[in-house]
Amino acid sequence: MLSVTEAVSSLLENGKRLVSSEEIDLISALGRTLAEDIVAGLDVPPTDNSAMDGYALRREDWKDAGSDLRISQRITAGSVPRPLELGTAARIFTGAEIPPGADTVVMQEHCKGSAEVVRIQKLPGFGANIRPRGQDMISGQKILDAGHRLRGQDMGLIASQGIGSISVYRRLKVAILSTGDELAEPENALQPGQIYNSNRLTMQGQLVAWGFDVVDLGVARDEPSAIRELFEEAASKADVIMSSGGVSVGEEDHVKDVVESLGSIDLWKIAIKPGKPFAFGQVNGTPFLGLPGNPVSVFVTMLIIGRPYLFCCQGTTDTAVYPTSQTACFEKRGSAREDYIRVRLGENGLEAFSSQSSGVLLSTSWGDGLVRQPVNVDIRQGDRVEYLPWPVLN
Amino acid sequence: MLSVTEAVSSLLENGKRLVSSEEIDLISALGRTLAEDIVAGLDVPPTDNSAMDGYALRREDWKDAGSDLRISQRITAGSVPRPLELGTAARIFTGAEIPPGADTVVMQEHCKGSAEVVRIQKLPGFGANIRPRGQDMISGQKILDAGHRLRGQDMGLIASQGIGSISVYRRLKVAILSTGDELAEPENALQPGQIYNSNRLTMQGQLVAWGFDVVDLGVARDEPSAIRELFEEAASKADVIMSSGGVSVGEEDHVKDVVESLGSIDLWKIAIKPGKPFAFGQVNGTPFLGLPGNPVSVFVTMLIIGRPYLFCCQGTTDTAVYPTSQTACFEKRGSAREDYIRVRLGENGLEAFSSQSSGVLLSTSWGDGLVRQPVNVDIRQGDRVEYLPWPVLN
Repeated sequence: MLSVTEAVSSLLENGKRLVSSEEIDLISALGRTLAEDIVAGLDVPPTDNSAMDGYALRREDWKDAGSDLRISQRITAGSVPRPLELGTAARIFTGAEIPPGADTVVMQEHCKGSAEVVRIQKLPGFGANIRPRGQDMISGQKILDAGHRLRGQDMGLIASQGIGSISVYRRLKVAILSTGDELAEPENALQPGQIYNSNRLTMQGQLVAWGFDVVDLGVARDEPSAIRELFEEAASKADVIMSSGGVSVGEEDHVKDVVESLGSIDLWKIAIKPGKPFAFGQVNGTPFLGLPGNPVSVFVTMLIIGRPYLFCCQGTTDTAVYPTSQTACFEKRGSAREDYIRVRLGENGLEAFSSQSSGVLLSTSWGDGLVRQPVNVDIRQGDRVEYLPWPVLN
Repeated sequence: MLSVTEAVSSLLENGKRLVSSEEIDLISALGRTLAEDIVAGLDVPPTDNSAMDGYALRREDWKDAGSDLRISQRITAGSVPRPLELGTAARIFTGAEIPPGADTVVMQEHCKGSAEVVRIQKLPGFGANIRPRGQDMISGQKILDAGHRLRGQDMGLIASQGIGSISVYRRLKVAILSTGDELAEPENALQPGQIYNSNRLTMQGQLVAWGFDVVDLGVARDEPSAIRELFEEAASKADVIMSSGGVSVGEEDHVKDVVESLGSIDLWKIAIKPGKPFAFGQVNGTPFLGLPGNPVSVFVTMLIIGRPYLFCCQGTTDTAVYPTSQTACFEKRGSAREDYIRVRLGENGLEAFSSQSSGVLLSTSWGDGLVRQPVNVDIRQGDRVEYLPWPVLN
């Protein structure tokens, strides 16, 4: 069996960016991956400015708490100050530019002022209450790397440079399909022998959460010609193909033969639980990930094995996930496979769902994340364990 | 000063769901909030089925490893089995229904079979390799609560019940606006005294990440009539109004007077760093959150103070965030305010960004989350601290 680490490494060795770039408006860029570094073209803030409402002065002009300084100008945010007259103060507001010649801002709470004069009762240190030019960024500084997936704060950061459109990678197109004559679609009456197809929606939802475009090809009947047709369509329409179920060497599993005839396929036994059987190959040159059929196996292998590979194809580079540590409120024997336990974090630590069967999808909705249990390591009550909340895998 | 906990509680006391429900296709429901409980209408799986490719039999029909059993039927997934003939076995495939009368499945690796007969070399225990009816869910069981925000796995879970459309809450509409004559928009040349408006994009991006509809009202000039007009428009178009900057008692800050004339406003000093000044009120009955003006303060108060309130208005109930604990690789003195430190998790623990100034938005893009530093608690190298990765706040 391949270890999880080996499986992910092996996929990444075969992985490369599969999408070109496009220019889009910054406002639409949430979740997209930068195709170019963002380099600051200007200092932010562009000039020294006031952190407070108060009075700007040259500190050496101050005599004592009993003396007045004449107010020689009034500077609001957005206006342009004149150089500070010698021996005077400027009324100034938060965000307003510091006038040339001033070196200190006194907060208004420490002053007594009228429109004409101000008496400074408590003088702060040199440079106080001034946000210096370039405090946030300086011109020429790289502020975001190509390959970065954009979050709300990044959009603000780019906007602070006056940039209104950026180059990002086109969304990765992932074709999804399922095989199985037992699969019924929602809203259709369930016939004897059938079950409703949950994997389709699990895959669709998770891929959308990752920001990919989904090409939904539905369900192929369990016969070679139907499967072949669907795979050919998938290869022509998408950057990556993902299927659930039907990839094994069983006599009712035709995916292997079909994919082999159109490209190549390797069946992997990965030491992961849930989720052992996994296929990787290509169909007419389009990479193919064959997930297991059980609902929890689909979800866990998508997150743990599929995620790094798909983001590699998307050109996203900052996808590392560091587990955090939490206290286990459960016990579980280790096994020969790395186990991803569905858990929920509460006041006292992590509870495990009552059934960890790969058929119990409810465990993933009940849970708020996974505990990674290394091979042959037992977990006892009170142990610190590696916890991956679902959101960090998004 | 209000503590962070007091501020959040006070907002939630004033909060209530502001949106009605609508019926949508399940496939579009990612990130939406359920307006109704989802109750299982059928058992999943609907019948006992095989977890393996193998042979189904009545266990007591087995004699010994040297005897053959006749194969009386072949059951593929999706087909309907006949009752098992006495003294025979059924060829069966993964996912296929167990024939009435059979009680055990033998995996094919432990058998020698032809099309007609099978010799079972290793008999497993009673009930082996059978996934029992209702293992995942049973009819009548509540599987998801109203108020739950849907993730990929939840969509799979609902699909497994054959449900194709669901009732969710309409997306919360949040109007955003900024005030400040110093604010320039991206793509426009920066005039003297101006800075580019980053808060607009930070707010827009984060609200979209939360699944809300954004009504972007742009920037009001620093004069009462312009501010009044924008607030009236916001109140008529949105469920909640959010602004950045301009809410204080300064003589250049007109928002307070305008909001007061249209509704009501309270200015809060919240013991949070960055982000002290915060306003809460209503404009013509529409709730109003007035965030500070500094870019990091906007972001942090949105995540820590605004988030619980906004999700309350959305009708989402499962928004609790449990911090995980990590090792600090930095030192920081405590203060009278709860501090949200921008950090990044690496191999050895959490590094803090070099500048924690509220003007340094780069700290939020550099970082992968926040450390919550309680009031008057020092952090020393090696301490375990409360860590909130950005994604768990999404």
